[in-house]
Amino acid sequence: MKISILKSYLNESIQHVSKAISSRTTIPILTGIKFDVNYQGVTLTASDTDISIQSFIPLEEDGKTIVSVEQAGSVVLPAKFFVEIIKKLPSQEVHMEVKDNFNTFISAGATEIQLVGLDPEEFPVLPSIEENQTLSIPGDLLKNMIKQTVFSISTHETTPILTGVLWSLNDNEFKFVATDRHRLATRSAHIEGADEIKFHNIVISGKTLNELSKIIPDQNSLVDIVVADNQVLFKIDRVLFYTRILDGTYPDTSRIIPSSYKTELILETKKLSESIDRAYLLSREEKTNIVRMQTLDNGDIEISSSSSELGKVREELQVKDFKGEPLKISFNSKYMLDVLKVVESEELMISFTGVMSPIILKPTDNSSSQYVILPYRTTN
Amino acid sequence: MKISILKSYLNESIQHVSKAISSRTTIPILTGIKFDVNYQGVTLTASDTDISIQSFIPLEEDGKTIVSVEQAGSVVLPAKFFVEIIKKLPSQEVHMEVKDNFNTFISAGATEIQLVGLDPEEFPVLPSIEENQTLSIPGDLLKNMIKQTVFSISTHETTPILTGVLWSLNDNEFKFVATDRHRLATRSAHIEGADEIKFHNIVISGKTLNELSKIIPDQNSLVDIVVADNQVLFKIDRVLFYTRILDGTYPDTSRIIPSSYKTELILETKKLSESIDRAYLLSREEKTNIVRMQTLDNGDIEISSSSSELGKVREELQVKDFKGEPLKISFNSKYMLDVLKVVESEELMISFTGVMSPIILKPTDNSSSQYVILPYRTTN
Repeated sequence: MKISILKSYLNESIQHVSKAISSRTTIPILTGIKFDVNYQGVTLTASDTDISIQSFIPLEEDGKTIVSVEQAGSVVLPAKFFVEIIKKLPSQEVHMEVKDNFNTFISAGATEIQLVGLDPEEFPVLPSIEENQTLSIPGDLLKNMIKQTVFSISTHETTPILTGVLWSLNDNEFKFVATDRHRLATRSAHIEGADEIKFHNIVISGKTLNELSKIIPDQNSLVDIVVADNQVLFKIDRVLFYTRILDGTYPDTSRIIPSSYKTELILETKKLSESIDRAYLLSREEKTNIVRMQTLDNGDIEISSSSSELGKVREELQVKDFKGEPLKISFNSKYMLDVLKVVESEELMISFTGVMSPIILKPTDNSSSQYVILPYRTTN
Repeated sequence: MKISILKSYLNESIQHVSKAISSRTTIPILTGIKFDVNYQGVTLTASDTDISIQSFIPLEEDGKTIVSVEQAGSVVLPAKFFVEIIKKLPSQEVHMEVKDNFNTFISAGATEIQLVGLDPEEFPVLPSIEENQTLSIPGDLLKNMIKQTVFSISTHETTPILTGVLWSLNDNEFKFVATDRHRLATRSAHIEGADEIKFHNIVISGKTLNELSKIIPDQNSLVDIVVADNQVLFKIDRVLFYTRILDGTYPDTSRIIPSSYKTELILETKKLSESIDRAYLLSREEKTNIVRMQTLDNGDIEISSSSSELGKVREELQVKDFKGEPLKISFNSKYMLDVLKVVESEELMISFTGVMSPIILKPTDNSSSQYVILPYRTTN
């Protein structure tokens, strides 16, 4: 293998695939990035067995030469050092040559690097996925759906299935669900042209979705999703992102949401967020995060928290619309803040069925996302 | 105590004094900020016994009312929570009132906070310092002198005196010295109007100087320095910053710097820094940080490092001026990078006396700073 390649393209591809490198792997070959060079271009691959990422660099783009291939070939190079040194090379063009025993010579400007490469034959083969059903979704919508649900996953490895986000697709309705048993987030979207595609109980690790989000560009390009037996493949421009589907059956969350409410409030998202944040600051010192919300006689609400050591915070907040009975309820303010951070709607509706029943939060501009927080049982 | 105060001024003062609050203190009163209100203004004080910071907020500035005092008085309020909540209050004006048992009521907009205050009588009294000798120094010069020396202090508590920076003033020459026994940084500056002031063996904790740096504004205002028996007082605008002088005698470092050199090189600071940085990346993987520098037959130098596992990095670097004998020397590249980060001169001179003698770095534009790095003894 012998090539000259533009540093900026090489660097971008390395940044993409390096998201699949785990620092905790015990398999030496997986600490590396695999280079495969042929006369179409350069393919970089990295994997931690749960996720695998492949990035392709073509020979040219818009008439500009990106890669010159003198000799095809493959090698695996140590990722951690490679990722950092490429960024810091002094010239725009980088020369790479693999010699005996996968010893790799890299030169750029007056810098020469000799790297101990590994045998590419040892690198695991990527899963082969039959692409009969491909779902196309705008990148920014996918990122948004991830952001608005993934914070509610469980971080406890004792219930591995809850560390993922549940995906389903039925009648063009693509739906994400995440819960850690104390709270629940759901977000759905109508997907054009997916009439023929259906799936359910596809659970993808939340950590993986966060990594995927980082690779999806901000410009509104399409991401292709291929769901196979135990793998999902995402195609983003020239990047292929493979992830394992989590084993197990996701719990049924459909009955958590009450069908009728005793109290419904419409509040300004930003003001609610700021009020809860101040009450949270104090509740955090008690390590409980407990904040109380209660309706006032004038139709507004009071948000409060207290700490035996420090004191009290009390907030009054205007209610835009109020329906139903007075209420007094306690909840984990951190959970509420997590929701308020991802809600983009200016106003939101909070619905209650009773002091020990789930609290439901729903943006008023968009019924496609819904959040549930279980209240705290407190004395008095 | 009962006042109304503009949030922005209160917040700025809190940010300043809170730098003296230690999260590890075992003295409850020192977790608080003391408020003293009289009919001149509000004084905030915080202390961790090593450093004490006092910030004064006047009643008005440029005709604008900052504080309205309804009743004078004092209280100590819990710093950690107070610092965070003030930033997040919803209105520009904050009302504070101390009631029975130092219970303090704070209100801003529709937010009401009740804080458990502590008795200000329990708060330690600040040292009284006789101000017969005051040194005035431009704030940006002081910050620069700190930045260019403090990175060389020792982090080992076994030699407490070396965790500080040595200050001396003689014949209008203000000098800073820092060393951890492996490297040395010195920086001096000529101070106008300090003819009458002399001091030596004033050692101030590096950590304290870093905190001080954060308080000194970027605009070119003067900082007044008052050196007393065991304390130094810095006056920065309306802030008083007291610090203890470290006990002990600082070692004599004057004989570390050789009087003559066998080899002298002039190099471009930025290029040298980038080359060493790349070689460092590899040496770091070996956990030694060892990088080698050697002269080449063409008059340039080679910078290299190697890792048994990963490979080698080799750099060629142009020498602007070369005097003396060829050389081959190994050193801790992290120490060299620390120096190169704070040198502002475009070129610098590196001088050598032998493979086991100190390496001297000196900016060419300014002889007032000088850096010493001890080389590594390596085989061959």
